[in-house]
Amino acid sequence: MFTPTDHAMMRRAVSLARRGRFTTAPNPNVGCVIAKENTIIGEGYHYRAGQPHAEVFALRAAGEHARGATAYVTLEPCSHYGRTPPCAEALIAAGVSRVVCAMVDPNPKVAGRGVEMLKQAGIAVETGLLEADALALNPGFIKRMKTGLPYVQLKLAASLDGKTALANGASQWITGPQARADVQRFRAQAGAILSTSATVLADDPSLNVRWQELGTAVQSDYPETELRQPVRVIIDSQNRLLPSQRLFSLPGKVLLARTQADEAEWPEQVRQLQVPAQPDGQLDLKALMTALVAEDIHHIWVEAGASLAGALLNAGLVDELILYQAPKLMGSHGRSLIDLTEFTAMSQVPDVRLNDVRMVGADIRIRGTIHHPA
Amino acid sequence: MFTPTDHAMMRRAVSLARRGRFTTAPNPNVGCVIAKENTIIGEGYHYRAGQPHAEVFALRAAGEHARGATAYVTLEPCSHYGRTPPCAEALIAAGVSRVVCAMVDPNPKVAGRGVEMLKQAGIAVETGLLEADALALNPGFIKRMKTGLPYVQLKLAASLDGKTALANGASQWITGPQARADVQRFRAQAGAILSTSATVLADDPSLNVRWQELGTAVQSDYPETELRQPVRVIIDSQNRLLPSQRLFSLPGKVLLARTQADEAEWPEQVRQLQVPAQPDGQLDLKALMTALVAEDIHHIWVEAGASLAGALLNAGLVDELILYQAPKLMGSHGRSLIDLTEFTAMSQVPDVRLNDVRMVGADIRIRGTIHHPA
Repeated sequence: MFTPTDHAMMRRAVSLARRGRFTTAPNPNVGCVIAKENTIIGEGYHYRAGQPHAEVFALRAAGEHARGATAYVTLEPCSHYGRTPPCAEALIAAGVSRVVCAMVDPNPKVAGRGVEMLKQAGIAVETGLLEADALALNPGFIKRMKTGLPYVQLKLAASLDGKTALANGASQWITGPQARADVQRFRAQAGAILSTSATVLADDPSLNVRWQELGTAVQSDYPETELRQPVRVIIDSQNRLLPSQRLFSLPGKVLLARTQADEAEWPEQVRQLQVPAQPDGQLDLKALMTALVAEDIHHIWVEAGASLAGALLNAGLVDELILYQAPKLMGSHGRSLIDLTEFTAMSQVPDVRLNDVRMVGADIRIRGTIHHPA
Repeated sequence: MFTPTDHAMMRRAVSLARRGRFTTAPNPNVGCVIAKENTIIGEGYHYRAGQPHAEVFALRAAGEHARGATAYVTLEPCSHYGRTPPCAEALIAAGVSRVVCAMVDPNPKVAGRGVEMLKQAGIAVETGLLEADALALNPGFIKRMKTGLPYVQLKLAASLDGKTALANGASQWITGPQARADVQRFRAQAGAILSTSATVLADDPSLNVRWQELGTAVQSDYPETELRQPVRVIIDSQNRLLPSQRLFSLPGKVLLARTQADEAEWPEQVRQLQVPAQPDGQLDLKALMTALVAEDIHHIWVEAGASLAGALLNAGLVDELILYQAPKLMGSHGRSLIDLTEFTAMSQVPDVRLNDVRMVGADIRIRGTIHHPA
């Protein structure tokens, strides 16, 4: 049903979409190619919320040639008036005769409306080409639309024997510079970086994106002037943090997730986000996730200690694990990686479906999705 | 200095040598190719102690054509009368005009004697071609010759977060069937499998090679009738094991490493090996290693718990780590992988120089050499 040309055009659209991965949040990454007789006559991608969608750039480039052409879009064209007019309408107006979408809109309430609008205008529409690649472009956007919860990536770093620090707390630097640069690139694609007041008090981390550390391949696609800082979300159930913490003086917004706000005078970019407590007094992590979606944050990169890592896993809120392993052996006196509940049978243990295992500098990086036993 | 033909011939010799890897112990793996004008006229490899050396098979195949030919050997030809006459003499008698050795004899006391004997007969001799590959053929033989100690491979298996079992001991099976078959292939190449009475009492393991599990690629090179069982060496400092243990009824020799022999009646294939105790009453692991070399065992595959793993690492006796990671998360209540001494600074921690990281079935296998801080 799809020709080799269709595949090649959609691959190009996916690769264009990826160029927006550092800037589009909270919008999805979308790429578009307009082609006629095996030749690309226009292409574009979404770069930043408030700016035109991918289809608009591609149609502009194609101009009059769009008439009778095929449009390849990584996501179903929108059918509603938002900050920009609906793309489906623009495609109709331009006279394209065929539209291929990698995937339909992930929001079940609007899925298919763009396709329908195009079909009613007599355009041939096909969907599902390179759908897996399209899904991978926007894990946060898609999970939010389907479930109301954000996509959560849990970053961990340990020795080969699963220890994060020696008994006395010594750990810096457990992983090497390439792994730390890799972390920078993940941070830069997230809507928020989630951590805890315990980590802030122990390590005084900046939890921001440092353009200098992104590497030249990213830098050439992503000029420093366009740098977007993910929101830093810090869980501080006991109101232990004070406005004087260094973190609060760095550029970028901070959300302090607390069960009770305090009356302190916080810097302008810091906001207290009140989240219900659980019966045990701990902040309700699922309620936090829902609150973050309400803040238009749906892709969360977690950097914290064994306690939050375990609590998120125990609550079934982690989608993906990104584990860096330093080639060291720290021994059983070292601190363990994840505080999970105590299991009594191997059948209760969470599984990780490995998607990628590779070297990053001298360290190993393991990526996988979390699957809890049914 | 070496031509592309030389490289190709030596690669062939290395690949021939590898065919003996399951059977030659305690002898080294050696391959030999005899070539004339880019054509192989004879080849061979050492298959089993007491049988002819690689050079003899290759010379037999070459016959009269060996005159004026080049012999490629992965190890310097021997110059002494052992169970077979010296290969250097055989090469001279056959009239080869040039000999290329990948490496000289690793025993510093005899290194170069074979080369010397050949040179005195007017043969051109060159050494060092594909030396790294030749070294990798015989890590145990070489380490023993150079240091008097065996090459020790430490096999470990854990979850991604470095746990070997749940708090209640549950662990079977932490890794999958492909990883277990991979372990079988490592066992089959070792001179001995080292474990402890604690592991025997806890798991009742067989610690043997099961031909059916070696996989078809190995089986086609290694007929079941040729199966060699590595010696099982069980550390039993407290004389906790009894002759009734299942392990002792399986085929293959067992050495019971004890600080004091007992008077029990042991099956014929079981022998008590007396090893000095340390001041703390524990068996002296370095003395054990020396005793095993005296038993002609120089390649040891360790499968035991966190305690022996840690003690061997603490004593600096481990050469290589083979770590299988099951894609699971077991949490901080689980049992840790290695009982090392307590470190107070990251600079004290042993490093692992990674040589190979790959998937084995659904598990990750990490191979690396151990380097202790200076």
